[in-house]
Amino acid sequence: MKDWSDRYAARAQGMGASEIRELLKLLDQPDIISFAGGIPDPALFPRAEIAEAHARILNDPVKAGAALQYSASEGYLPLREWIVGHMVSRGVACAPDNVLITNGSQQALDFIAKLMVDPGDTVLVSRPTYLGALQAFNAYQPAYDLLPGPDNNRSAESYRGGSAKLKLGYAMPEFQNPTGLSLDLAQRRRLVEDADALDLVLIEDAAYEQLRYDGEPQPCLLALDAERAGGIDLARTLYCGTFSKTIVPALRLGWIVGPKAVIQKLVLVKQAGDLHSGTLNQMVMHEVASRLLRDQVARICDVYRKRRDAMLDALKHSMPQGVTWTHPEGGMFIWVTLPPEVDGAELLRRSIAEARVAFVPGAAFHADRSGRNTLRLNFSLASEATITEGIGRLGRLLKAS
Amino acid sequence: MKDWSDRYAARAQGMGASEIRELLKLLDQPDIISFAGGIPDPALFPRAEIAEAHARILNDPVKAGAALQYSASEGYLPLREWIVGHMVSRGVACAPDNVLITNGSQQALDFIAKLMVDPGDTVLVSRPTYLGALQAFNAYQPAYDLLPGPDNNRSAESYRGGSAKLKLGYAMPEFQNPTGLSLDLAQRRRLVEDADALDLVLIEDAAYEQLRYDGEPQPCLLALDAERAGGIDLARTLYCGTFSKTIVPALRLGWIVGPKAVIQKLVLVKQAGDLHSGTLNQMVMHEVASRLLRDQVARICDVYRKRRDAMLDALKHSMPQGVTWTHPEGGMFIWVTLPPEVDGAELLRRSIAEARVAFVPGAAFHADRSGRNTLRLNFSLASEATITEGIGRLGRLLKAS
Repeated sequence: MKDWSDRYAARAQGMGASEIRELLKLLDQPDIISFAGGIPDPALFPRAEIAEAHARILNDPVKAGAALQYSASEGYLPLREWIVGHMVSRGVACAPDNVLITNGSQQALDFIAKLMVDPGDTVLVSRPTYLGALQAFNAYQPAYDLLPGPDNNRSAESYRGGSAKLKLGYAMPEFQNPTGLSLDLAQRRRLVEDADALDLVLIEDAAYEQLRYDGEPQPCLLALDAERAGGIDLARTLYCGTFSKTIVPALRLGWIVGPKAVIQKLVLVKQAGDLHSGTLNQMVMHEVASRLLRDQVARICDVYRKRRDAMLDALKHSMPQGVTWTHPEGGMFIWVTLPPEVDGAELLRRSIAEARVAFVPGAAFHADRSGRNTLRLNFSLASEATITEGIGRLGRLLKAS
Repeated sequence: MKDWSDRYAARAQGMGASEIRELLKLLDQPDIISFAGGIPDPALFPRAEIAEAHARILNDPVKAGAALQYSASEGYLPLREWIVGHMVSRGVACAPDNVLITNGSQQALDFIAKLMVDPGDTVLVSRPTYLGALQAFNAYQPAYDLLPGPDNNRSAESYRGGSAKLKLGYAMPEFQNPTGLSLDLAQRRRLVEDADALDLVLIEDAAYEQLRYDGEPQPCLLALDAERAGGIDLARTLYCGTFSKTIVPALRLGWIVGPKAVIQKLVLVKQAGDLHSGTLNQMVMHEVASRLLRDQVARICDVYRKRRDAMLDALKHSMPQGVTWTHPEGGMFIWVTLPPEVDGAELLRRSIAEARVAFVPGAAFHADRSGRNTLRLNFSLASEATITEGIGRLGRLLKAS
């Protein structure tokens, strides 16, 4: 069969390659300084502890038998119990039946949209928003509109009256990918109230939540929503967590916390989708997270804080007039706004050719493809010296323009 | 929010809990002899080799850095290269760009349907067919019709004229789950020709292909189709393989082999779905499969062959008149047909209560819920003595009915 194009489902129209993914290939060129990607520094991975946990499990015939066998779609119970304790520390009273294990939070976003979104339903997202969320949602053919928030003062009433069904709101309240910005407590309360007024299901993407370098932790949206509603099983928020940014990405483990009835439906989505997440991976993550998550988070925050500071310093010293950027309290990204006439994608081509510096042009993070004069810089992977050098080169390129 | 039922997408209507999954919970009761499930015997897992591969990778800082980091959506290149060699040995000339790594073949079935099936499109399946395939497909709201095959003499013409779009055909040519039956060479050629005549995309589910205890290996459908079409990139067959039945299930690794253009689209589905399969898992599987797949397959075939023979013997000695069963050359299952008046689900309830024997009633494997007087028996998990005892009990129950 030569031409498959008429075989694909309508939803395949919305499936495009990630610009980030294409850019990641540039990481293989050793003279490129890459601020693209959202990749943790592998030097900070708790390698020895992960190796020891594997050895403990695999050298015990009984544990190994379970670790290598099929297991429950909802996930490994001790890991779900550990997550319950973690969520309680975030102010969310819940039980293992409120928790589904997923392959990272990307699968959580896919599964929630698969369960909820009919073609044409409206999903509310920020502008900009996380590119991977748009990719996950696009497969279910939503319409997009703007999530209520600090930059959007539309009233709840203004969303009503259209024919499309308002279905989901998607928010990353801490150190948002791509801007690095967080919602303060008043903004969080307002978002939960707006979601209730709009009768939305709210997806809380907490991927970077634990990477806080300054300021006070804030309650998560699910905690505020459960308080409002009278308990998690009456809440309208689905919280998506991940071990990818704190422990390691490659064990592909994240989780969804929400009302039991919805988790039961998501277990069916998981079962039909890939049966269950890796059993050994879950057992290892349970051991590693139980033993060292707190210390590990402290360790990586120390390193990433210095890198963020190095990038902020370098931006201050290197950028020409008319360029502005965010000052995140955590996470992995700084968001740069260029003068309105500068196109981020065009700048990237020149930057790779002339300055040997990579980043992600900001348009990719906009459901409406606006934001052409923006770009995302990652500071978690490169050393402070490399950050200073790379931002210096980028500044010289911009000044020469 | 109390009632989420009006939030779910239309596709959620087709998502039901697996009867097999509910039955698997019975395995926890020690006095139940379970012939339910499709689970390999964990005593046969190559535990030591898997432990050694983990240690080799994780004790090497460079390898470990890669093994624990994000990686490419299409999968770990050396594993894809190994799969190319494996497929060549099955008569399929292909390249790494023809291979996508998935989380077991369940994810392969989900992704293919996600890429291909619009609501109302027709998917052709056997009667009976694999329950997990129906679960994967149901989320995309197909109509089902009967796949051309030995029990279905409908002409290609008879499928035409309806308003629904014939989209996919799904076949498991070796040791089908649930019947254990295989297609002979003539039947395979005929199926590939029929798929061409009907202009179908053909999914070849090769999950049990390597578990052959008697008889000669047959060419896979993809090999015959590529031969017909003039090369894999012109074929209309997507081959789904897995390590779950030969090495271990819990590393969650399978693969799709097909035309490059389709694999490229499936890579986008993978990227939006869960970014990539576990990197460490893929590196470990590459080492383990390269070193011992052939020996491992020989070892498990020796054990499973004896268990199949024990079950066939026990059926012959224990079943009353009017009960018939298949004689598979491989795989994990024997399919039993009861007298027409016996209901498999009702028999299961009685069997658990009175005989303490579990199996899967056959109706679950029928898209049209027919086959009520059938049941599936698994012979890969229990010992020969347990098989003899369990089939004896089941036979006494049936004779007493």
